[in-house]
Amino acid sequence: MTLPSRNALVPFVSVDNMMRLVLHIGIEQVLRDLAAEIEADFRRWPQFDKTPRVASHSEIGVIELMPTSDGETYGFKYVNGHPSNMKKGLQTVTAFGLLADVQTGYPLMLSEMTILTALRTAASSAMAAKHLAQPGATTMALIGNGAQAEFQALAFKAVCGITEVRLYDIDPAATRKCARNLTGLGLNILQCQTPEAAIEGAQIITTCTADKQYATILTDNMVGAGVHINAVGGDCPGKTELHRDILLRSSIFVEYPPQTRIEGEIQQLDPDHPVTELWQVLTGAAQGRSNAREITLFDSVGFAIEDFSALRYVHSRLRGSGLFQDLDMIADPDDPRDLFGMILRAASA
Amino acid sequence: MTLPSRNALVPFVSVDNMMRLVLHIGIEQVLRDLAAEIEADFRRWPQFDKTPRVASHSEIGVIELMPTSDGETYGFKYVNGHPSNMKKGLQTVTAFGLLADVQTGYPLMLSEMTILTALRTAASSAMAAKHLAQPGATTMALIGNGAQAEFQALAFKAVCGITEVRLYDIDPAATRKCARNLTGLGLNILQCQTPEAAIEGAQIITTCTADKQYATILTDNMVGAGVHINAVGGDCPGKTELHRDILLRSSIFVEYPPQTRIEGEIQQLDPDHPVTELWQVLTGAAQGRSNAREITLFDSVGFAIEDFSALRYVHSRLRGSGLFQDLDMIADPDDPRDLFGMILRAASA
Repeated sequence: MTLPSRNALVPFVSVDNMMRLVLHIGIEQVLRDLAAEIEADFRRWPQFDKTPRVASHSEIGVIELMPTSDGETYGFKYVNGHPSNMKKGLQTVTAFGLLADVQTGYPLMLSEMTILTALRTAASSAMAAKHLAQPGATTMALIGNGAQAEFQALAFKAVCGITEVRLYDIDPAATRKCARNLTGLGLNILQCQTPEAAIEGAQIITTCTADKQYATILTDNMVGAGVHINAVGGDCPGKTELHRDILLRSSIFVEYPPQTRIEGEIQQLDPDHPVTELWQVLTGAAQGRSNAREITLFDSVGFAIEDFSALRYVHSRLRGSGLFQDLDMIADPDDPRDLFGMILRAASA
Repeated sequence: MTLPSRNALVPFVSVDNMMRLVLHIGIEQVLRDLAAEIEADFRRWPQFDKTPRVASHSEIGVIELMPTSDGETYGFKYVNGHPSNMKKGLQTVTAFGLLADVQTGYPLMLSEMTILTALRTAASSAMAAKHLAQPGATTMALIGNGAQAEFQALAFKAVCGITEVRLYDIDPAATRKCARNLTGLGLNILQCQTPEAAIEGAQIITTCTADKQYATILTDNMVGAGVHINAVGGDCPGKTELHRDILLRSSIFVEYPPQTRIEGEIQQLDPDHPVTELWQVLTGAAQGRSNAREITLFDSVGFAIEDFSALRYVHSRLRGSGLFQDLDMIADPDDPRDLFGMILRAASA
């Protein structure tokens, strides 16, 4: 058959190529770069077309589409969340995403996003903490030592200067896995037997557990004054990690309120409970941390703009890298009205 | 680096492989099959998770995501609509889609859908006409002879037994292209100089033009009693093809009212103007055509379930065909919690 035209070809970044790209740049550098890209995009927040993600819920999990556009480039991510996958030997969260040109609607890049989501989630967390945690924070408790944990630890090292990470997971095997992976990467790693031990002396507490249920990873008496809480795991209706009383004592920062009120920790609160949009802290339009005793909480659920930033970053690094394949994805006959003729010509070729 | 696991691989149907598959089965057979699949899925309409498509509009076009699920399988389509693309030598509409397993959220197949959308749109039109047009209809006017035209003509031949197609386009070159492509495929093809000439003696009128504006392809005096109108081209806000007076004389059938009221011809009418859902005609819950003088109008905008049916059909034909490539799209480490370790192992491999 005839060769596809140049417009028909969409660069695809496979899992293998994503790993090569990340290793080529360096994981910590990628996390720093992503934090900078996400921060830059949050600073121009009003330019984006924003919508809560489109979720298809089942009893066992959720499949979501997360689109956004800045008027020049369009991006979306497909992502699932299936906590029970782990028992089947599958990833709880897998993802892929696409960038497209708003002027033509033609795709610019298709990419794996399971790894990229782990990176951008950690980079977003660290970027938020850089602005909300107490200056000079050096110790982070990391509760939940699953697939996201090492990315969080390294992002807080690379972006916030964290030097000590205190691990706890309900499953000690997860903690051992996490500690082993973080060995030799320049962090002081402690494996703790209880969540209480993990948060001892921590200026930052990150929770990233994955049960699809209302869970109470942190209770009120565990959280002292001045702490920054980075709540990553509570991210869909019916899935929370923090006791409501902690929320009531905290200054709460969110990505996009219409989505977070449904999916975040604040689904436990009244729909008009005051929250601050993180992008407004970055532009100076809203106050971040106001004093050293304040508890700040980043109620993170993940927003489409973070994926957009991450996809654009990967796209910007592709040229000349050789780390992609061209997919014959777009039917592009010479005469655009002659789609049918393209099939006829394929038949005779 | 290490080879991707079996779960990491997603079958991808390229444009080239889609053409091979369609030619292998036969275009008319594919159109008949798709009409049957779409009808079967419309008959079980209440089982589907339905939502209006998620559109990102710009001044120049639209990019849409169209998800649905039947509880076992999830599908979505990415599709753009950029009427001005044609002048740039690009397709007005391009698309790709994905099927996934609701139980795990893992993708089952990625496929081009530019060609598949053209096929499913024509199959949906013909399926609707089979139920709504006068029995024994043999002649169709086809107004708008662009990328969708030949698919419509063949679908009405294959599904409804149409023997004569009367072509008209504002651009005679499009009509010549369409007539040339349809030569020798068993239809009597007439090229007409005016829309009035095209609709002469036609029991079915199909309009499929692509301007993103309110256009009046058909005016009221052109439409006689008993005709079935298949309005394909009016499919987004601000884009219609029929004069409002025609709508007021017609019995109107739609796919999914919440979407059609925004995107279809009926955006010209009051939001409570009565319309009938096509799936209810198929199940017998609602009346279709009631008499030989009635004007029936299928105000088609395209709905996610049609894409779902089409993707499932393609997926069912893939096994053993060799007409796909495996994409390394899903990061799937042996221990699902050890995503980070997968990168570390890639580094040392």
